[in-house]
Amino acid sequence: MLCLFITSCNTSVEQTKTIDVSNIDELNQAIENCKAGDEIVLADGIWKDAKIEFKGKGTKQKPIVLRAQTPGKVFIEGESYLRLGGDYLEVRNLYFRNGYTPRNTVIDFRIDKKTFANHCKITHCVIEDFTQPDRDRTDHWVEFWGRHNELSNCYIAGKSNFGPTVMVMLKGNEHIKNYHQIVNNHFGPRPRKGGPHGETMQIGDSGTSMTPSHTHVANNFFERCNGEVEIISSKSNYNEFRNNVFFESEGSLVLRHGNYATIDGNVFIGNDNSEFIGGIRVINTGHWITNNYFYKLKGSIFRAPLAVMNGIPKSPQNRYNQVTDAVIAHNTYIDCKTPFHFGVGSNVSQKDVLPASEIRSAQPIRTTVANNLIFSSEGDAYPIKNYDRVDGVLFKNNMTNSENNGDVKPDGLMTKTFEVNNVSDLLYVPAKNHEDVFAGFDFETITTDLFGNKRASNNSIGAITLPLKKNPLLIDKSLYGTDWFSAEKPKYEAKTIKVAGVKALTEALKSANSGDILALQSGTYAIASSMVIDKRITITSQDKTNKATLEFSSSSPAFEMNPSANLVIEDVILNGNKSQDAFATLDKNMTKAYNLWIENSEISNFKNVLRVSKGSFADTVSVSNSIIKDCINGIQLNKETNDKGDYNAEFVYITNSEFNNVGNNVLNYYRGGYDESTIGGNLVLQHNTFTNCGKTDQDHILINNRGIVNVNFSNNTFKNNPVKLIAVLWGEKGQKPVDNTLVNSGKIEVVQNLKLKLMY
Amino acid sequence: MLCLFITSCNTSVEQTKTIDVSNIDELNQAIENCKAGDEIVLADGIWKDAKIEFKGKGTKQKPIVLRAQTPGKVFIEGESYLRLGGDYLEVRNLYFRNGYTPRNTVIDFRIDKKTFANHCKITHCVIEDFTQPDRDRTDHWVEFWGRHNELSNCYIAGKSNFGPTVMVMLKGNEHIKNYHQIVNNHFGPRPRKGGPHGETMQIGDSGTSMTPSHTHVANNFFERCNGEVEIISSKSNYNEFRNNVFFESEGSLVLRHGNYATIDGNVFIGNDNSEFIGGIRVINTGHWITNNYFYKLKGSIFRAPLAVMNGIPKSPQNRYNQVTDAVIAHNTYIDCKTPFHFGVGSNVSQKDVLPASEIRSAQPIRTTVANNLIFSSEGDAYPIKNYDRVDGVLFKNNMTNSENNGDVKPDGLMTKTFEVNNVSDLLYVPAKNHEDVFAGFDFETITTDLFGNKRASNNSIGAITLPLKKNPLLIDKSLYGTDWFSAEKPKYEAKTIKVAGVKALTEALKSANSGDILALQSGTYAIASSMVIDKRITITSQDKTNKATLEFSSSSPAFEMNPSANLVIEDVILNGNKSQDAFATLDKNMTKAYNLWIENSEISNFKNVLRVSKGSFADTVSVSNSIIKDCINGIQLNKETNDKGDYNAEFVYITNSEFNNVGNNVLNYYRGGYDESTIGGNLVLQHNTFTNCGKTDQDHILINNRGIVNVNFSNNTFKNNPVKLIAVLWGEKGQKPVDNTLVNSGKIEVVQNLKLKLMY
Repeated sequence: MLCLFITSCNTSVEQTKTIDVSNIDELNQAIENCKAGDEIVLADGIWKDAKIEFKGKGTKQKPIVLRAQTPGKVFIEGESYLRLGGDYLEVRNLYFRNGYTPRNTVIDFRIDKKTFANHCKITHCVIEDFTQPDRDRTDHWVEFWGRHNELSNCYIAGKSNFGPTVMVMLKGNEHIKNYHQIVNNHFGPRPRKGGPHGETMQIGDSGTSMTPSHTHVANNFFERCNGEVEIISSKSNYNEFRNNVFFESEGSLVLRHGNYATIDGNVFIGNDNSEFIGGIRVINTGHWITNNYFYKLKGSIFRAPLAVMNGIPKSPQNRYNQVTDAVIAHNTYIDCKTPFHFGVGSNVSQKDVLPASEIRSAQPIRTTVANNLIFSSEGDAYPIKNYDRVDGVLFKNNMTNSENNGDVKPDGLMTKTFEVNNVSDLLYVPAKNHEDVFAGFDFETITTDLFGNKRASNNSIGAITLPLKKNPLLIDKSLYGTDWFSAEKPKYEAKTIKVAGVKALTEALKSANSGDILALQSGTYAIASSMVIDKRITITSQDKTNKATLEFSSSSPAFEMNPSANLVIEDVILNGNKSQDAFATLDKNMTKAYNLWIENSEISNFKNVLRVSKGSFADTVSVSNSIIKDCINGIQLNKETNDKGDYNAEFVYITNSEFNNVGNNVLNYYRGGYDESTIGGNLVLQHNTFTNCGKTDQDHILINNRGIVNVNFSNNTFKNNPVKLIAVLWGEKGQKPVDNTLVNSGKIEVVQNLKLKLMY
Repeated sequence: MLCLFITSCNTSVEQTKTIDVSNIDELNQAIENCKAGDEIVLADGIWKDAKIEFKGKGTKQKPIVLRAQTPGKVFIEGESYLRLGGDYLEVRNLYFRNGYTPRNTVIDFRIDKKTFANHCKITHCVIEDFTQPDRDRTDHWVEFWGRHNELSNCYIAGKSNFGPTVMVMLKGNEHIKNYHQIVNNHFGPRPRKGGPHGETMQIGDSGTSMTPSHTHVANNFFERCNGEVEIISSKSNYNEFRNNVFFESEGSLVLRHGNYATIDGNVFIGNDNSEFIGGIRVINTGHWITNNYFYKLKGSIFRAPLAVMNGIPKSPQNRYNQVTDAVIAHNTYIDCKTPFHFGVGSNVSQKDVLPASEIRSAQPIRTTVANNLIFSSEGDAYPIKNYDRVDGVLFKNNMTNSENNGDVKPDGLMTKTFEVNNVSDLLYVPAKNHEDVFAGFDFETITTDLFGNKRASNNSIGAITLPLKKNPLLIDKSLYGTDWFSAEKPKYEAKTIKVAGVKALTEALKSANSGDILALQSGTYAIASSMVIDKRITITSQDKTNKATLEFSSSSPAFEMNPSANLVIEDVILNGNKSQDAFATLDKNMTKAYNLWIENSEISNFKNVLRVSKGSFADTVSVSNSIIKDCINGIQLNKETNDKGDYNAEFVYITNSEFNNVGNNVLNYYRGGYDESTIGGNLVLQHNTFTNCGKTDQDHILINNRGIVNVNFSNNTFKNNPVKLIAVLWGEKGQKPVDNTLVNSGKIEVVQNLKLKLMY
């Protein structure tokens, strides 16, 4: 027995030490000299332009630690980054903010092309709004190289620029079979980006679809990660996604390339919010999707709760392999609209505009869908939608409480009457176990349920078996993020500031807090310079029946939209002299998205109503109940012309408004590049009247919406507009004119298949 | 301590029994009733048309055995097959011969689409010449399904028809991660087939390139497996090829699809034989090729000792992925001509005739070639050949005893003076260890050498480290095949039979043994029916200065070439009446290849000199020092028109001969279907004279050799042939006319890039 106790003492006594550092030079020297077991402590305060290359050789028992003196009191700001190279290095409690990386990564698990990290860890750190000044510039916030590295208990939010937030690199034998751990993190909001390359996580790329990765993504909280259609893009083999929560995140967990992923025990919460909130999208071979819980998701097609795609026969490496040998079992769908979508992406009808190598005609085969539970409180007559045949899929013992009126009615999707109980917040569980489970090949490996309860004795259809543990929590927030940072900001009570005169207006605009309302006294305000908007501001009139008038005389924009601008113009009259723009973004460094809302207002005599720069992005541009007249150009969201699926605004609402004598480009809203999966651009054009517009329009099209995917075009009136075409709508995306009135104007054309430049 | 001994006795005593069966009904009943531990014994004798479905549930400790009463005395003949379904079944000592399967498999590790074998074993069995009557019909002799099955110590030879001999199927989760064992077998000769689908082993297909297979192929002896350019075609992931011997086999071990193969400790023996004998061809990602020994290989390009291919960027699934992350280390090349070929298949120059998705421009990247040893007794100034750039390959500490005059001279390919000793048959080993080895990433996992000696203490460049064990055997024949069957047939001493008169000739032909020579007395033999050739026969004249004349009068072929015919016509005059063919194959059921040699003979007045059927295949057709005249048609090897890379003859030699007044198709030798890797068809046309030929030729081309890859066209004379073209040669394959004389005939055209139908 004695030998058990001897070994642990049998090492020579080595000095390990704590080294306090308070500037970069001291830090560099400490790193230079560090040995296994050492702890380097960064002094509290702001570390500006900190370019940290943390190199060293720790051991499993004795890692080398680099940490903040006080958790959350060490701020990494300015042009900073952190790179790791070596073994068993650990970084704790740093706070990245007010800056961005001057290179391509904020935190990088390598120093250079030859020096990688292995068994290294970033934990309890925060990266917040550490985004590039230029949205078009690509970076990654955390880039994995090497093997056995860890990102844990971090809070990461606010990336607005191009590039996945977390990227796992697999290029080279040094990085495969990496078993990286990405666990217990809180991925806070990532704003909409407009186009692709806004993933919160990407593991590999299309060139690593054959590479064994074994990255482990577990117990993370993804909160409103809205960057693009893929929250996580898995592009390598054997990745595992377990017990993560996807909360109101506009996108899906997508098995884009690579095979044999495990998606087990995850929670997808839509809460009946945006139709952009999706679930799991399946491509490729051999995935197991089990024990997941989906709640109130409204997404469909690419964003369906379960989207199983059609593939391209003998697909090129970067396109869509056929789905084969997938197992989708024991998942629960509560109040999701049509949870099953099969053959998603089938596009045989488009063979005239697409090359053969783009036609997704290969249906899923050798795929088992079994023991899933679908519950709808109000009944959902279409639990399954198919875009192609589904004979290659074996449906067994799936249960729904609604009738199935869909096109396919597999025997294995049974309608049964059953109840669910609300057990805790967002958690609905059947009143009893439904034990008639199908035993598919290797199903005995599904040993537990969503909560880790053993299935052996109490198996049931769906993600959850009874009995439940006491007080089951669907989302246990104590698991995620750091032990020192709170993502919840104190709520600001907005105030209304009454303003009279230009000087007061200018000063109030400067001093107002974000959210405040500037209420103008009636009268005319002669304004000689730009009003800079860099926060949430409402400008309105005190007397809505006698609106204030702002007269602009300088040639700079009336309103200069800065990053994070959120401007509401309500009950105000804006008037220019045709030498300036009413609204314009900065020409560059539009770090973050802006919003513009015009309501019950009047805009006249401007050069452009809205002019934007290429890198700018509006989440929403809205004009309602307003009059726009006598402008040279209208709303121009057409500068992002890289033709790679990007665009300048996510939502454009123009409703109940009048456009008179806008000479050119009343609206030019553009998205270029064919990519079926990055669905983007939303235009609502309803109940407007356009008169005498388009006189100087070069392309003779009044409303340009080329490439925008979602368009509602209805109840407008067009009078005396001397153009050839009012608009060209995209039939394949379901666009059609509804109840418009055309008088002495061009016509509205519908093109079924729009020819776009292929992106790849 | 006691507990260790108790468990093994702790099972209830079950009766296991031996069941003797002597016919199919008894066998079926025995199978019906069999239990774990039972042994079913087939009575000695011939089992004709035996369709055996061996189903049962054995256990690891108690397999169910089906075996021959006496090893090698149970013959499975006629239309027979064996299928296995269940667990732990074992089949021993059966001999498949004189027949073929009426289905698609001879031995199948499944009964039907739902009943598979797991942990089942075929051992010490023989399958010999059990080939389909029709060469065009596809089957597999051993088809693997399920998991953990074994083919061991078998002798398998003589498959002539379409389809890999051994096929591992991976379609479905039941068959992945199969860990099948294919070990200690002797794969005897597989004849040339002419075109693709003649592999000796194939593991998966292009649709399973993402599937983990883990098939283990070890200690097998591949003897003259000449079926096609790929002896083994690996088309799935994680397969292992260890310690196999490839002996004078015309083809390569090809990593066609799938990734992460291990090729360790294999031996490739060319013995300076055919240029078709290759080594290892590399495509895809992550392979480790270590400790292999290559001896006197003359193959090049696709058949090079080491062929590392270029890939197609973003390749379609069934084409060529880029080579990435491969490790090629510690291999030894002894007297191989230019062992390293890189960028094989680069075809950028063909972009005018091929679609972009066929252009192999992606060079190997992130690939390490290190610690390899190249020795050439006579010096080889070109140890490496490159068809594209090789900057993506890291060469380190490779050693050659010759100067490198090649186009690329990587630092890591060093010229050093060193000696090798002949230690045993075919085995050459450096006189001392060359310890300056490169330590690449994960190279510490290469723990042993070709013979299993530890590298830790005595590492060396090349496949072998010193000291050697005593009496090292490169090829230990005791390891391979059954314990009861000898593949070596007693050698027959051919005899010469003197023949005078038609009757004697007819009778002698019937009674002769294969290999005999029929020597004809001078004079004229009037022959009224076909002479059927189904063995190796030489027909010659006793007096070479006064040759015998055979006069044919019937309209059936003068010589009917049956399967396995090997006919030598030497010093004989053949004369027809223009109503019959001189030589013709059977119209169908040409099970096996035939050979035809015409030497110092004269052939005149036939309808066709040679007419073949679609399914027929000649290994060699040779005409030398002979005269062919006054025939309507010449040699027609043009019936295989499936345009899938198949053709009717491997070698066609026409040398030192005269063709006079052959009206049409003097030679028509055809191969259709573009497939760069199944290199086929060989024509030597040298020192011939063609006069007054081609008068009735429809296509106005005298010599048709479309699609034939290797053509030597030199020193011929063409006089007064009224055709447009003498021939069209294929520039891209290096074909060109050399020293031909053209008088009043068409011209010879060289087309650089022949436009062929794509095969896939």
